[in-house]
Amino acid sequence: MANPSLLILAGDGIGPEVMDEVKRIIGWFGDKRDLKFDVSEDLVGGAAYDAHGVPLHDDTMAKAQEVDAVLLGAVGGPKYDNLDFSVKPERGLLRLRKEMDLFANLRPAQCFDALADFSSLKKDIVAGLDIMIVRELTSGVYFGEPRGIHIEDNMRVGINTQRYTEAEIERAARAAFDLAMKRSKKVCSMEKANVMESGILWRDVVTEVHADYPEVELSHMYADNGAMQLVRAPKQFDVILTDNLFGDILSDCAAMLTGSLGMLPSASLGLPMANGRPKAMYEPVHGSAPDITGQGKANPIACILSFAMALRYSFDEGAEADRLEAAIEKVLADGARTADLMGPEGGTPLSTTEMGDVILAAL
Amino acid sequence: MANPSLLILAGDGIGPEVMDEVKRIIGWFGDKRDLKFDVSEDLVGGAAYDAHGVPLHDDTMAKAQEVDAVLLGAVGGPKYDNLDFSVKPERGLLRLRKEMDLFANLRPAQCFDALADFSSLKKDIVAGLDIMIVRELTSGVYFGEPRGIHIEDNMRVGINTQRYTEAEIERAARAAFDLAMKRSKKVCSMEKANVMESGILWRDVVTEVHADYPEVELSHMYADNGAMQLVRAPKQFDVILTDNLFGDILSDCAAMLTGSLGMLPSASLGLPMANGRPKAMYEPVHGSAPDITGQGKANPIACILSFAMALRYSFDEGAEADRLEAAIEKVLADGARTADLMGPEGGTPLSTTEMGDVILAAL
Ligand SMILES: CC(C)[C@H](C(=O)O)[C@@H](O)C(=O)O
Ligand SMILES: CC(C)[C@H](C(=O)O)[C@@H](O)C(=O)O
Repeated sequence: MANPSLLILAGDGIGPEVMDEVKRIIGWFGDKRDLKFDVSEDLVGGAAYDAHGVPLHDDTMAKAQEVDAVLLGAVGGPKYDNLDFSVKPERGLLRLRKEMDLFANLRPAQCFDALADFSSLKKDIVAGLDIMIVRELTSGVYFGEPRGIHIEDNMRVGINTQRYTEAEIERAARAAFDLAMKRSKKVCSMEKANVMESGILWRDVVTEVHADYPEVELSHMYADNGAMQLVRAPKQFDVILTDNLFGDILSDCAAMLTGSLGMLPSASLGLPMANGRPKAMYEPVHGSAPDITGQGKANPIACILSFAMALRYSFDEGAEADRLEAAIEKVLADGARTADLMGPEGGTPLSTTEMGDVILAAL
Repeated sequence: MANPSLLILAGDGIGPEVMDEVKRIIGWFGDKRDLKFDVSEDLVGGAAYDAHGVPLHDDTMAKAQEVDAVLLGAVGGPKYDNLDFSVKPERGLLRLRKEMDLFANLRPAQCFDALADFSSLKKDIVAGLDIMIVRELTSGVYFGEPRGIHIEDNMRVGINTQRYTEAEIERAARAAFDLAMKRSKKVCSMEKANVMESGILWRDVVTEVHADYPEVELSHMYADNGAMQLVRAPKQFDVILTDNLFGDILSDCAAMLTGSLGMLPSASLGLPMANGRPKAMYEPVHGSAPDITGQGKANPIACILSFAMALRYSFDEGAEADRLEAAIEKVLADGARTADLMGPEGGTPLSTTEMGDVILAAL
């Protein structure tokens, strides 16, 4: 049988730097665990714009549709800030999500024991935190029509449309309930049903899907209260299910609770392909970090943990994912720290490559 | 000259309880400072629904349009959770905002020195925090058309519309810049211009209005990053300007940073009336708190501080507002605590009325 295929889109900023370490990890799994991947690489975001004048070339899009999983680094940077909306680096990312139909975005917000002190929250509030946010990723106000800036009565008017069909809500809800069944069987769904009809439909459909998951405890919360509760007592949550826009904000809020953004991976999953694997893209939650690009300072762990998610969700290699995650926990417990993880006590941080080295050694 | 007029809409849950203390404070200003108000009262929310079958009677709406300021308690409660969308308690509140055209919602997130320990965040991150969020309150996805739940291809589809005209953005921006001129001359505007065209227009218009405020330092931030930065390092902000929906979530997030939701007031301001005063409604940020309703446990401070905002923004009585705020800071420093402000060390909390007593005594 052919090796499973990976398309690496390292993107902009620190994307290529952190992805270099992922490539070494991929190599290790091929050599030592006989888990070989066919790896190809291509451009996305500003890098693609520089080469082709678009943030994602059609050929790259076609490749992404064919591989077993895409690994993405990061997109964007100040150089591209003034580009037209239609060719901004983000459009490349959004096109991948939309055309691959990656409707379930899994964003763990996990607080690593060794790093609990880094949170701006009190240690007892976040130590042991382990939330999974399931964000709908292909619909809602990100993609709804009509949209744009028009002139009405000599005045500019900006319009976007929040639009959800029941099928879109249903499949996102199933993803959340399925995950909850493997975790602590608790889902909290967040919307603004008190203000938005799309939120009412969201709540209704989630409640209907829940009938198929009698073992799961379902609660509903308004998204504003959700933001409050995340700050007040995040450990009350296990799986949080929410839409594209609320998910964008709430998952960033949750990510920051952990205090170590450089540590958080994500998976974006779609429908099963012919081989049974889901369409999938994996990427760190952090951005392209232009301020530290090219300095060898970036923390590669979020990107490496994204590859661990690929092992688990695309390749059914949960035990190998555990192995990789355990190696990372070990090096952190042993005190390995990139610059973003340095406490006030100081010390010499590891470079991106050195962090890769110690993780490989721990494997 | 006639006394200025106040309409009290105490609403549901703890609304009436906390408003009772506000009435005593209003009485004190009449007796001791010769600041007399003509006070009338009416129903809103579930209370109005129980009496009239609608969450805001037309007569009440008409009165609200005539008075110098509305003081609102809180709306909603489990009893009303299954009502039709169109008559839910929240609709009463939204109608007041919309028909009074209260476009500028001012939400201070302030951390009281005596209470910094209550935050789930580390003390040094929040001590001295003093942010003012200016949330656009009459437009955006809360009110945009088309909206509703429709059937398309035999499937339910939920739709809401985010819609902003440049005039709507401009007046909210002016409110923020005007406030910033009286504070530390720093405004951060938040949207999702990387994803939403309405966000692009928002950013453009705010930038244009900024030209009239050369002394103010303006920055722009994506709303997801805004949520992160609020959790990471909230003191980097002074005035935050944002739209209705982002403002709902970000202001709740910011409120929770302070750790004492029972302390936070808000003002919703509109255009100047014939007498020069702005259309105005003042309300605490907290909700109706059904779990503690009727137990005399509620903290009246947020509602009293909302009246202080009325003194400042409607009646140009900044010195009297300062006096009231100072009295509250004093009783807190002296250790006065309602149940929500009790630390792990315990003690006997003050009742709602007792808190009113000590504040009156401090005045
Ligand atoms: C880069 C941007 C388009 C994106 C989003 O808004 O979804 C990002 O914030 C994210 O959360 O992945
Ligand atoms: C009660 C609700 C309609 C309201 C809102 O969403 O605006 C509340 O959350 C607020 O922030 O004042």
